[in-house]
Amino acid sequence: MAFPPLKNDLLLRAAKGEKTERAPVWVMRQAGRYLPEFRKVREQHEFFEICRTPALATEITLQPIRRYSGLIDAAIIFCDILVVPQAMGMEVLMNPGPSFPDPLTTPDDIRKLRADVDVDKELGYVFEAITQTRKELAGEVPLIGFCGAPWTLFAYMIEGGGSKTLQKAKTWLYRHPEESKALLMRIADVCIDFLVGQVRAGAQLLQIFDSWAGELSPDDFATFSLPSLVHISSSVRARLSQLDSLVPLTLFAKGANQSLSILSIQSGYDVLGLDWCIDPVVARRIVHQNAEKAVALQGNMDPNILYGGPEAIEAYVKRMCGAFGKEGGWIANLGHGITPGVDPDDLKWFFECVHKYSTS
Amino acid sequence: MAFPPLKNDLLLRAAKGEKTERAPVWVMRQAGRYLPEFRKVREQHEFFEICRTPALATEITLQPIRRYSGLIDAAIIFCDILVVPQAMGMEVLMNPGPSFPDPLTTPDDIRKLRADVDVDKELGYVFEAITQTRKELAGEVPLIGFCGAPWTLFAYMIEGGGSKTLQKAKTWLYRHPEESKALLMRIADVCIDFLVGQVRAGAQLLQIFDSWAGELSPDDFATFSLPSLVHISSSVRARLSQLDSLVPLTLFAKGANQSLSILSIQSGYDVLGLDWCIDPVVARRIVHQNAEKAVALQGNMDPNILYGGPEAIEAYVKRMCGAFGKEGGWIANLGHGITPGVDPDDLKWFFECVHKYSTS
Repeated sequence: MAFPPLKNDLLLRAAKGEKTERAPVWVMRQAGRYLPEFRKVREQHEFFEICRTPALATEITLQPIRRYSGLIDAAIIFCDILVVPQAMGMEVLMNPGPSFPDPLTTPDDIRKLRADVDVDKELGYVFEAITQTRKELAGEVPLIGFCGAPWTLFAYMIEGGGSKTLQKAKTWLYRHPEESKALLMRIADVCIDFLVGQVRAGAQLLQIFDSWAGELSPDDFATFSLPSLVHISSSVRARLSQLDSLVPLTLFAKGANQSLSILSIQSGYDVLGLDWCIDPVVARRIVHQNAEKAVALQGNMDPNILYGGPEAIEAYVKRMCGAFGKEGGWIANLGHGITPGVDPDDLKWFFECVHKYSTS
Repeated sequence: MAFPPLKNDLLLRAAKGEKTERAPVWVMRQAGRYLPEFRKVREQHEFFEICRTPALATEITLQPIRRYSGLIDAAIIFCDILVVPQAMGMEVLMNPGPSFPDPLTTPDDIRKLRADVDVDKELGYVFEAITQTRKELAGEVPLIGFCGAPWTLFAYMIEGGGSKTLQKAKTWLYRHPEESKALLMRIADVCIDFLVGQVRAGAQLLQIFDSWAGELSPDDFATFSLPSLVHISSSVRARLSQLDSLVPLTLFAKGANQSLSILSIQSGYDVLGLDWCIDPVVARRIVHQNAEKAVALQGNMDPNILYGGPEAIEAYVKRMCGAFGKEGGWIANLGHGITPGVDPDDLKWFFECVHKYSTS
């Protein structure tokens, strides 16, 4: 597929660990509820209807790029991590949080899942949306594809929605460790096909969201989450290399800060996303100590600082830029998705401050 | 006040960092909803009615001591961290989670708080319950008093209940940093009086619960939470020394694992509680590196492992005991409060496994 040439490759260079003239910046969930133009589309369409309609997903993906043109360095395809459980045969509703009418209650329920998932058939709408968005972006910024990490998806599939303690999912880990590991790998296999398909469709960087990584002890993370994350990075890299279309891989294992060292050595990702609960100076030291080639970092301002007004935003961005330093290999971002109720102009100010304080 | 002599001082010796013949063990929220005898009392009485009725609070405090006699090494007074906001003049309901009908919405609302809090008047019922419980314990195990940390109480007082993101409380920190710091210190002053009063009434160890410490970045934790925690430890220690009744002080700053180093150097607590998201070996290394005298540690098994059945419980307890080692200065516990639905016999097995695997 031929796409227009890329005019802004800051994100891709920083993801490779290179020194950049300033830090590239985007924010997780940037096409979301804080934007009035998003809420307007949402009034007319259900959440998953938007995901499944390439024209709508494209429109929403582009909204922040239009609004913040010149200030924002990446688009991320509008989609949801729960399309993978859907592709595996589970029903997922969004009202407004995710909810599974028929979650997995015992390992026997695994039989209910689709044995072989044809991602082109089940998730072709994402690939179409990516291709269309990439075309409409016209090379302005790179397009990010993504999926959820197996542990996070496993937890949703068993809990049936969000949960404070992940009691049900953890009960599986502790009572049925072997069945859990097998299911985690089975989810990973679907993620691999899905991620490779996204690159074939036009994605220029891939991010894996392990949103619930931080709920596990470091031991349990290493036992239950890391193997499937490594399976994804190694398999996706191998398949993309064969296709001669390798792209940078980012892992955001939210809260797994105690595992940053092992992630930088073993996980096989080019970029590790950070939440705000680790000092960037500490994070830089850990990844420098451990890796042959230091991985790049992404993050990590507390999204709530966007409620603090221009003065607080500037002070915190300045501090964050100082802490990550000017050595490159850093993608500026929040430490978690942007939340509803943020004033879009405050986000604009965040971008402007990153430009100002991260310039070499 | 004369109380019966203490027969089991394992907890107090371990809290001082001493090597003990086995690790003392108790669990946070041990007098709670997982116990049928607690639920029976709760059917007849409202939550805060129990807190305010010394005979009921005593009864519930003693329930796990009776059930696990010989296996459990501490009682913790039945109460709630939100009695401090109540003492400051705020209404708090429990239905079933905590809810404030009239939370603080702007710094102007601070005027609504009681200017001087007479803890003997407002919280005398806790002191009575402590004295009565200490008598009835007859020296079997020590009695722990506690309160919430200022940051956690501040967050409740502003959010008006639990919250996923603490958006409102953080908006205060970022928009009104000076007013926030002043309020945090004002809450700390009430906590100090309350904690000293608990020791005068008979408490033999004090624990401060900073349940939401982990929601703050390390910088924000150092700026907003740590100063009031230090104010508490230094003031309580000074006042108890004058009374010649110093007791060990424990801080459980849940999730603030990136701040363990600074806590071990600066916080002034004898014991630091750990959640399950830090490897005990790593935690030991950090507190040994940093303190003149290594602080003791408490924790840290994931409470959800109690749903995993006897085999998982034994394997995880064995691993935890191995990781904390036999050097002493360790109080075995869960990494957070025990949750409803746990089989009391599984908790018994947890205690038995700690006895088995932590014996020197």
